[in-house]
This record gives sequence, C-alpha cells and structure tokens, in this order.
Amino acid sequence: MRQEHKPAQRPEQSASERPGRRKSARGPGRPTSTSGLYAREKLLEAATELFANQGVAATTFAMIAEQAGLTPAMLHYYFRDREQLLDAVVEERLAPLIAGVWGPVAAGEGPAEVVHGVVDRTLAGIEKMPWVPSTWMREVLNEGGLLRGRVLRHLPFEKIGILSRSVAKAQAAGTANAQIDPGLIVFSLIGLVMMHMATINLWAEIFGRKAPGPKALSRHITGLLIYGLQPGEGRHCGGPMKRKARSRRK
Amino acid sequence: MRQEHKPAQRPEQSASERPGRRKSARGPGRPTSTSGLYAREKLLEAATELFANQGVAATTFAMIAEQAGLTPAMLHYYFRDREQLLDAVVEERLAPLIAGVWGPVAAGEGPAEVVHGVVDRTLAGIEKMPWVPSTWMREVLNEGGLLRGRVLRHLPFEKIGILSRSVAKAQAAGTANAQIDPGLIVFSLIGLVMMHMATINLWAEIFGRKAPGPKALSRHITGLLIYGLQPGEGRHCGGPMKRKARSRRK
Repeated sequence: MRQEHKPAQRPEQSASERPGRRKSARGPGRPTSTSGLYAREKLLEAATELFANQGVAATTFAMIAEQAGLTPAMLHYYFRDREQLLDAVVEERLAPLIAGVWGPVAAGEGPAEVVHGVVDRTLAGIEKMPWVPSTWMREVLNEGGLLRGRVLRHLPFEKIGILSRSVAKAQAAGTANAQIDPGLIVFSLIGLVMMHMATINLWAEIFGRKAPGPKALSRHITGLLIYGLQPGEGRHCGGPMKRKARSRRK
Repeated sequence: MRQEHKPAQRPEQSASERPGRRKSARGPGRPTSTSGLYAREKLLEAATELFANQGVAATTFAMIAEQAGLTPAMLHYYFRDREQLLDAVVEERLAPLIAGVWGPVAAGEGPAEVVHGVVDRTLAGIEKMPWVPSTWMREVLNEGGLLRGRVLRHLPFEKIGILSRSVAKAQAAGTANAQIDPGLIVFSLIGLVMMHMATINLWAEIFGRKAPGPKALSRHITGLLIYGLQPGEGRHCGGPMKRKARSRRK
C-alpha cells in the first residue's frame, strides 16, 4: 500500500483554514513542488477509500480532505470539482486496472485460458486496490452509479470480443457448453469476482468462517466458470478444454 | 404487476396538505377502511420502486407519497417512520421471496437440482418484483447497505446448509468439482442471478443486444453453475451430476 512509504510530511494547514484567510505566499492550496505528487496521491487514495465505504454521492470534498489529513483547498487545487476528481479516479486508477486485466488476452486463446488470466489479474489488481470491488458494485453496476459512464468508455471491447468469439468457436466445435451465452459470460466473470470480493467479509461473518484469500477465491471462481459443479480437473472425459499450465500466483 | 388491477381510486388529498390543516373528520392521514389495504400496498410499491432506482438513503417519505399519488400523512399513518417502512419491505416482500426460493429445497437433492430450483424460483420472483435485483445489490450486498441486517435475519441457513452439504458430499464421491467451495457456492449462485438481472439492461445497451428474458438467463446461469464452460448436457462422460427432468418455466 502506498501509505507504507510515507516521506517526511511537512506541516499542513488546519482543515478549517480557508484559502481567503491564508497567509502563505503560495496560491490557495498550492503545494510545494516536492510534496505535490505525494499530496495528490494521498487525496486520490482518501477519495477512493471513502467512495468504497460510503459511495460517491455521500462523500464531500471536506471528508476527503479530512481523511487525507490535508486542507479542502489542497483538494480544490488538484481537482477543480467533483467531476474532475471522478475523472482522475477512473483515468488513473480504474482504467489502468482494466487495461492490465484485459491487455494480455490474445486472439486464439481458449475460453479457459482467458478465464484464468482475467480472474487472476483482476484478483491481483484488487489486492493492490481493495476499494475497487465495492465501488464497482455501487458506482458501476448499480443503476445511477456515478462512475458508470466514465468506466464504460474504458471497456476493452476488442478483448471482450476475443473471449466471446473464443467461447462461440469452442461451442461450435462441441468443446464448450452450448448453454452459455458467449456475450453474457464477460459479465458473469467480472461480476463473480467483484461480487465475491465485495462481500467476502460479509460472507465470513454470516457463516462464521475465515474469509478466503485471493488464491482460494480464484480456485473457486475459475473452477466454477470452467467446470461448474461437474467434477473438474481430475476427470477423464472427451473434449476437455485446453488449458495452459498456469504460473502460480504470488 | 399490482398496478394492473387498479380499483376505482378515490380522490386523494394534495401532497402539500399537512395533517394539522386537515379538515377531514378522520385522523391525520387515516384512510377509509376499504381503501386501506390498497393504499398501503401502493405505498410499499412506490417505496420499493424508488429504492431500486435511487437507493434507500436518497428516498424521502415525501418522494414515496408523491410517487404513490398519496399524501405524506398517509405514509406516516401506515409506517410511523423509515425504520418501520424498511421493516415492512423486508418482512412483507423480501422475506417471502427468500422463503419461496429456498422453501422447496429438500435434503438429499443433488447440487444440480438445488441450483436449478433456486435459480428458476429466484428469476420467477424477480419477474413479479423487478425492483429486487438492484435493491439486493445496493442495500444488501453493499457495505453499509440499509437492508442488510434485516435481510440477514431471514437467511434460510438450514436450506443453505443443504446445498453446501450436497456439494461436499458429491465432491467426496468424486461427482462434483473439488475446486468449488461448498460454502461460497450460495453467494455465487444468488450473486450471479441478482447481478445479471440488475445489469441486464446495461449489458444490452453496451453490446447493442436485446436483453435476454428469464428463460435465456436461467439457461446461461444454471449452465454456468452446473457445467461451467465445459460442454454440458450433450457430452458422455463419467460421473455426470444427477439431475431431475425439470418442469418448464411458464
């Protein structure tokens, strides 16, 4: 996590201080050049954390500044308004995650291979950005979600098309389940990962179990997507799906 | 839908009328006995519709009354406060749905049979109450969801246990996929149905396709849960999961 590498922090103005009353020679909220990048990252991190916990609509600039231990003026310096802040969250956080998840998907891969790669890279991304699943559920999948339009612009349609065509081709060859909708599978895949990650603590609480880690979740989710409840890897059966030996996740 | 059977409507007080200024001999907001049940249903329907579209937190009593074409006083007559209204939504709407979905699950059923039954009954319930999926996503699965605690009290742990044990037993017998977590499968199952139903219009819009109906969705979801991407029903392969001939959904 970013906060582990804290550089020495310079004293910040109190949160109640208003730009107009500022005695500093710098412009309102303007950071020193050395602290700039760090403060901006800190503000984005505070924003994403609050968005995950309480949603975008309920999160004010004042809350974000307080969470980051910085002034609202600082926040306004880096992000003119909420629109610009939301742009930054999507452009600088979610879009790179999406690109990282789908980028390696290559034409010609079988469905199982795509599923393994996408599930594992999504889980790895969530490990670095634990705020993603609940924000995805609330602000992308929900009707009226406040990041929906922005995220949709970053959907990698070409890569999603590779998965769909791969499933359709395998179905035509009789090596994939004809019941699966090759168009819907991408929502099933991403939805399962986000839903399980967003609710894993709830699940653990309800059933009095330890929340499974990403490895165990990957096993469950890829197992479900590739073999369903049918006996999977162990069985000997005609037309098994091709699957590369996959590298172990760290 | 309930609104199709509209009885003759009696004239309602304007929404701006306040109980204190009421000239009626009846108590504030108190309905005539014949219209009572209908008005209460109408208010619950308005509330659930608004909850689905914008969430519980953003929905005021005034909005619900307006949506129902009744007075806020009427709403306050039937539901003292928001807590009581939320109780009613869960006790009278979600709890019966959950009971209807899980009630028929019987000990001794195989995993595939349980999956088929639960998926199809959930989809049938959602057809009658289209507000459920987005409310489930937002107010039950989300961190801080405002119906979470209330819904958890109605989870049918005994029936969920039947599914878990059924999967574990089949795994021990080598007839179910050992990668599946028998505890997590209930979340995968319900989550897949709710997520696909909550996002089906979004999906249709993104990919320029017609939203699949419940039959097509059932096929996709049960196909995925039972066979995964592997070739399903058609293949001949050792240890297939037992599955009853299932009755066709209407």
